Amino acid sequence: MKDSSSGYGRTHPNIAVVKYWGKTDETKNTPSNPSISFPLINFLTETVIEYSMEDTFYLNNEMVTIGERMNRVVEIFRDRAGDGRPICIKSFNSFPHSCGLASSASGFAALALALNDFYNLETSEEELCRIARVGSGSAGRSICPEICLFNGIYIEKLPPWPEIRILSIILSGDCKKIGSTEGMIRTRYTSNLYQARLSGMEEKVKAMAQYITHKDFDGFAHLTMRESNELHSILMDTYPPIRYIRDDGFNIIEMCHEFNRDRVKIAYTFDAGPNPFLITLERYLNEVEDFFKAYKLIPCNY
Amino acid sequence: MKDSSSGYGRTHPNIAVVKYWGKTDETKNTPSNPSISFPLINFLTETVIEYSMEDTFYLNNEMVTIGERMNRVVEIFRDRAGDGRPICIKSFNSFPHSCGLASSASGFAALALALNDFYNLETSEEELCRIARVGSGSAGRSICPEICLFNGIYIEKLPPWPEIRILSIILSGDCKKIGSTEGMIRTRYTSNLYQARLSGMEEKVKAMAQYITHKDFDGFAHLTMRESNELHSILMDTYPPIRYIRDDGFNIIEMCHEFNRDRVKIAYTFDAGPNPFLITLERYLNEVEDFFKAYKLIPCNY
Repeated sequence: MKDSSSGYGRTHPNIAVVKYWGKTDETKNTPSNPSISFPLINFLTETVIEYSMEDTFYLNNEMVTIGERMNRVVEIFRDRAGDGRPICIKSFNSFPHSCGLASSASGFAALALALNDFYNLETSEEELCRIARVGSGSAGRSICPEICLFNGIYIEKLPPWPEIRILSIILSGDCKKIGSTEGMIRTRYTSNLYQARLSGMEEKVKAMAQYITHKDFDGFAHLTMRESNELHSILMDTYPPIRYIRDDGFNIIEMCHEFNRDRVKIAYTFDAGPNPFLITLERYLNEVEDFFKAYKLIPCNY
Repeated sequence: MKDSSSGYGRTHPNIAVVKYWGKTDETKNTPSNPSISFPLINFLTETVIEYSMEDTFYLNNEMVTIGERMNRVVEIFRDRAGDGRPICIKSFNSFPHSCGLASSASGFAALALALNDFYNLETSEEELCRIARVGSGSAGRSICPEICLFNGIYIEKLPPWPEIRILSIILSGDCKKIGSTEGMIRTRYTSNLYQARLSGMEEKVKAMAQYITHKDFDGFAHLTMRESNELHSILMDTYPPIRYIRDDGFNIIEMCHEFNRDRVKIAYTFDAGPNPFLITLERYLNEVEDFFKAYKLIPCNY
């Protein structure tokens, strides 16, 4: 797709197993805590950039206003390139957006990659993560299609875990009532339990990195579920409270605990939306499909 | 109802605005934190005790097994009276039980009052609170039909607030999946955020007592809602998570925040069940009835 006068970027959304919620700097989108995520390689964002008569942005062939954050990311690259000419950005998602499939993360990551390519800059991957983060706090994690730990400043790749199978269930395609940015600000300023969560994050991130490195599925699954629950606790403790998981989502949580009764074979995790991600191992996949046969399971990474 | 050979006790369930969740001693039912509650004077438990051929218990005219906790309370009074003869306990609730209307609190309080009367003991009110607590952690608060603070050991009556109107909405009459005792134990041993909650409770109780004493409805309502939210956060952080508030209950929460948009006129609070209690002032009652006209509002104290 790349020719001499166009830029191209291609990324995947990601799902965090240690979540980031809250910013220490809201303008710079600096996350309050490090997070760890898996790429959802079945879903793609592709972004193409060309010179144009004026700055324009097409998302899935539809013209969309360029938001403040997108503009900030574009300006960073323009400054670096010393090239202020208007551009046209065309972005395509192979998956539905605004329903918890992390489209903004992969969108901003693809934008950063495409701009870097367009201006022929040789920005380091870590630098690209930091710039993408200005657009979306979790976009840094979508720059590299690997399991990674991102603290807003540096990115650390974790060893691959090829046996992992990630599935999602779309319980609702509705847009969120409260976007993550608004929610994060509200949590930071109102939740009494927020500081207690933050003070445990470093340890949690270390433990999760160890579980992944040693392919300890039992430890990994427990921590993934507890971490998702903790995030959604903090949301309930936000004032007024925020609730993304609905009754049908909580049913899935209860089904997972039932499924794990004798042995831990599955983990659930919810982002800022109603749709669960299920994480299992290849060897349990048939059993998972059978147990959750009332649901449409969408393979995310296999 | 009292004759020379029978004992009688009459109590109301109560609704806590600062909740107690977690025990420091599970056998003695010692609460981990003090709580503050309002009596629901429209609902009654009446308990009658007589000598019998063997120990029997009738709840709303139905014979029921005497549980371990009930037995423990009975034994405390038998010991004090030095009278081991078998008794028949008949208890009547004027309201549905096991759906979050605190029937066990008023049940154990009525039992303690009736036993005290039956054996002609002159146990102090505070002592009765402590004994009732052995049956149900929040039963101490049902011993006296007033706004009160109970820390498991002493009870403090707060000034009356006659303008307060408490309403409940029965969204579901289903029994709880997880009883409070089991839930409290699970929270204590698994929730990472539980300690953070506990460390804030003394201050919260003090603030709530001040709001009630000064009839500061704004402060009272905010703290009541935040406290309910915090309890249900801790439940979500319990592992496996516990969720009592369903989608229809969360709708009521959102409606309350909408209703309070310009001025705080209502508070919600949820116990370990799906049914919300709404607390307002006499002067807002018509407006509340109008705003929640899709629901059947049950007056609890007026």
